[in-house]
Amino acid sequence: MDVDELVRPALRQAVATLPEPVRQVADYHLGLSGGSAVAAGKALRSALVLAGCRAVGGDVRRAVPGAVAVELVHEFSLLHDDVIDEDRVRRHRPAAWVRFGTGQAVLAGDAMWALALRTLSQTHDAAALEVLIRTLTDLMRGQSQDVAFANRGDITVEEYRSMAEGKTGALLGGACAIGALLGGSSADRAEELGRFGRHLGIAFQCADDVLGIWGRAERTGKPVGSDIAARKKTFPVLAALAHPGEAGRSLAEMYHRPQPPSPQECVLMTDLVERAGGRIEAEAEAETQIGAALACLDRAEPGPAARAELAMIASWAVRRDR
Amino acid sequence: MDVDELVRPALRQAVATLPEPVRQVADYHLGLSGGSAVAAGKALRSALVLAGCRAVGGDVRRAVPGAVAVELVHEFSLLHDDVIDEDRVRRHRPAAWVRFGTGQAVLAGDAMWALALRTLSQTHDAAALEVLIRTLTDLMRGQSQDVAFANRGDITVEEYRSMAEGKTGALLGGACAIGALLGGSSADRAEELGRFGRHLGIAFQCADDVLGIWGRAERTGKPVGSDIAARKKTFPVLAALAHPGEAGRSLAEMYHRPQPPSPQECVLMTDLVERAGGRIEAEAEAETQIGAALACLDRAEPGPAARAELAMIASWAVRRDR
Repeated sequence: MDVDELVRPALRQAVATLPEPVRQVADYHLGLSGGSAVAAGKALRSALVLAGCRAVGGDVRRAVPGAVAVELVHEFSLLHDDVIDEDRVRRHRPAAWVRFGTGQAVLAGDAMWALALRTLSQTHDAAALEVLIRTLTDLMRGQSQDVAFANRGDITVEEYRSMAEGKTGALLGGACAIGALLGGSSADRAEELGRFGRHLGIAFQCADDVLGIWGRAERTGKPVGSDIAARKKTFPVLAALAHPGEAGRSLAEMYHRPQPPSPQECVLMTDLVERAGGRIEAEAEAETQIGAALACLDRAEPGPAARAELAMIASWAVRRDR
Repeated sequence: MDVDELVRPALRQAVATLPEPVRQVADYHLGLSGGSAVAAGKALRSALVLAGCRAVGGDVRRAVPGAVAVELVHEFSLLHDDVIDEDRVRRHRPAAWVRFGTGQAVLAGDAMWALALRTLSQTHDAAALEVLIRTLTDLMRGQSQDVAFANRGDITVEEYRSMAEGKTGALLGGACAIGALLGGSSADRAEELGRFGRHLGIAFQCADDVLGIWGRAERTGKPVGSDIAARKKTFPVLAALAHPGEAGRSLAEMYHRPQPPSPQECVLMTDLVERAGGRIEAEAEAETQIGAALACLDRAEPGPAARAELAMIASWAVRRDR
């Protein structure tokens, strides 16, 4: 998908302009110095930028600064997220804040954000820059909702969808729309491609939530079961808590206990989420969102090759073993 | 200067759009809910945006979104700075991270940054937005240099100037240039006003360093002598360390000891900085930078009233008891 060939060298080049010591932290976090998640072909957002550009018949080389910007925003948000959530592991390695300290991780995230904006602003495409800024605003709304959820016991599936749209959908949608705009798209087509990405993002988040409970650690790069141990209110859990049966009630009781669950209780809770239909509902939600995404994609009238590519990315995003 | 009348309500309105829980953190940090630094007329950056606009004959009402954006960037950077430097006190109160935790402080800073960009992007002034993005890049360079300095013993006064230009000058310069652009300025005039602000920023930082050592706590809002206790490498200290005499050598020896200084040693170190000429050199540097700032100001050919206002802001910025 040209990501390795076009985007990765440009990303590396952009990061090399960062001042020390933040360059070193960014290098580590991005895995540019060693084995890397970006290298491993997980650069979903870059792929969406390039595909969004192709969907409107644009030259993908023009979309590269957009892909670099979107990838940097994603990576900055992960870097700060690990600080915010006190997550100590990222991609099988110590998180940047564990390795370099909180202060340097915060600063490196800030610098990556500034670099993302700078990279895109150098294209002088005002519409694309406005989309990135709107994306950042929505991303922050999603992150805030996510933090607020931790202290609330009454979150609805609807609120969760809004959070996931901000936290995950905004940037996937922004990626598609920015790619399209850099490819010379009309505002309307870019908007439809943006909606495609937003629905895709909600689907992706639901699939991620399923992985976070039932995935294997070597796939997710995080300790298995950590979402349940931290009693995170992810989609499967919210759906299970809303379930009227016995399993949902037992789960609710365990989610509201003051003390953290033991490893044995985590196993039981995982089982309760499944028995209360949490897993099935999360998978169904992901499928519904993919359907909505594909409807938006068709309205954007992409060429057949680009349509196939975007549909393939969509199906990959919800595949359980991705 | 219309800051209280025009900017403060707009800032309050912008912050009210932030999602919870970050709105609450931003409110606290900005002091919008109680007594406030912004209220107390210290909104130097807002004043520069409005004055930059007036300098080119613009209508200040058009510059208000620029002032809000610049103020938000400044406040976001203070919020993250306190996390990065582990400073526990800001404006005589616990820093936001002490009050709400590191995670919420980091997120609130991110959200304020996004809000700043959003506010300015709504003016659809591409040139002003590009200046803000360049400003953010330079600000991050300055912050990185500042962090790097903590682990180095050989910083020159020249490197310090570069750091201060990024950390403090970039945003003061950005404020002037953005105000001018929103007021309809040519790129050249905005550029000169930007240079005025950058020199002013270095002057301001030197004056701030003097206050950080010899200022009174009730003025600075920070514990007196904390810069010396933390052995920060501020301008007066670097100038004193570079001094060939006995006082400079004794100071160097105390700055490089592994253990932190006692309160008595802090008093002695403060005296050594003064005896080695650190205070006089910092004050002279501030004056030199103000001179350079005023030369740039004249090249921008502001009207007489705007010139007087900007010159007054410049002289206020280096006044010892500001």
